Amino acid sequence: MRKLRYQVACSLDGYIAGAQDEFDWIVEEPSFDFEALHAQFDTIVMGRRTYEIVHAMGERFPGKRVIVASKSLRQEEHPEVEVVGEELEARVRELREQPGLDIWLYGGGELFSKLLGWGLVDTVEPAIIPILLGGGVPLLASSGVRQRLELTSHKVYPSGMVLLAYKVRGARE
Amino acid sequence: MRKLRYQVACSLDGYIAGAQDEFDWIVEEPSFDFEALHAQFDTIVMGRRTYEIVHAMGERFPGKRVIVASKSLRQEEHPEVEVVGEELEARVRELREQPGLDIWLYGGGELFSKLLGWGLVDTVEPAIIPILLGGGVPLLASSGVRQRLELTSHKVYPSGMVLLAYKVRGARE
Repeated sequence: MRKLRYQVACSLDGYIAGAQDEFDWIVEEPSFDFEALHAQFDTIVMGRRTYEIVHAMGERFPGKRVIVASKSLRQEEHPEVEVVGEELEARVRELREQPGLDIWLYGGGELFSKLLGWGLVDTVEPAIIPILLGGGVPLLASSGVRQRLELTSHKVYPSGMVLLAYKVRGARE
Repeated sequence: MRKLRYQVACSLDGYIAGAQDEFDWIVEEPSFDFEALHAQFDTIVMGRRTYEIVHAMGERFPGKRVIVASKSLRQEEHPEVEVVGEELEARVRELREQPGLDIWLYGGGELFSKLLGWGLVDTVEPAIIPILLGGGVPLLASSGVRQRLELTSHKVYPSGMVLLAYKVRGARE
């Protein structure tokens, strides 16, 4: 079965973007194989804020289905993606049941919180960058809901980046 | 020279205590040598909130000098510790210059933020517990100040706890 995986760069103090949405703190890691990572997914799910940031940065995802969770974006103005509003839970559930490569939860913390609450997240895979940001966009939006994890792998890179992978306890096998 | 080290258990989303100051989420890790950890320090520095929590839990630190950063606690009511108020920066700077074992920054995030701003923290050593808390007391109080770190060691424990150690960039050698 395909998995929904939250793969994201994160500061040691738990932020996925700076207070002004900046990403300039993410260190270069030449030994990390981004191509191999991208090749594991055919579908990407992201929140509206993440979408606006990556879109403004000119990032595109050729050959992948991109779902943007938003109740305010208008589909006809964003033909390159699939805008999903109220029906988000049902749509993600359906996609997760379909055959295919894994689904990449690309960001951010609000969407992660919702999907986690619905039991739709299989793994959490933060790449911890050696920096403290002292503020910004949290890895997980404040929800008050605890979630036990199971560490399944770890890898340390020359830059000091630590890639951790966890299985969400209670997620399907 | 002795070091001031922030050694603390932390959730994957960057909290050192739950929203009600709880610590029950910190998993048992029988293979972790707490005695060896304690033996590296002769001085402990903590914030007032951390002190009240550990004191209420009955935790004492025999044989160690314990400094509590607080402008409200009255020294005569807490003879077992040294209460330091306005003169915190000077006092910690002085202790750090003295010979001795390392100084343990025991918590919490507010005190860490202050000491980091004053350039008095040498290392950050979080033990990342495999859990998401979705809220609580942050590892680092929101300060907006970025701090680059250098990964110096990592160790993975059977429970899934990941102990990371970082040198604060720019801290003295």
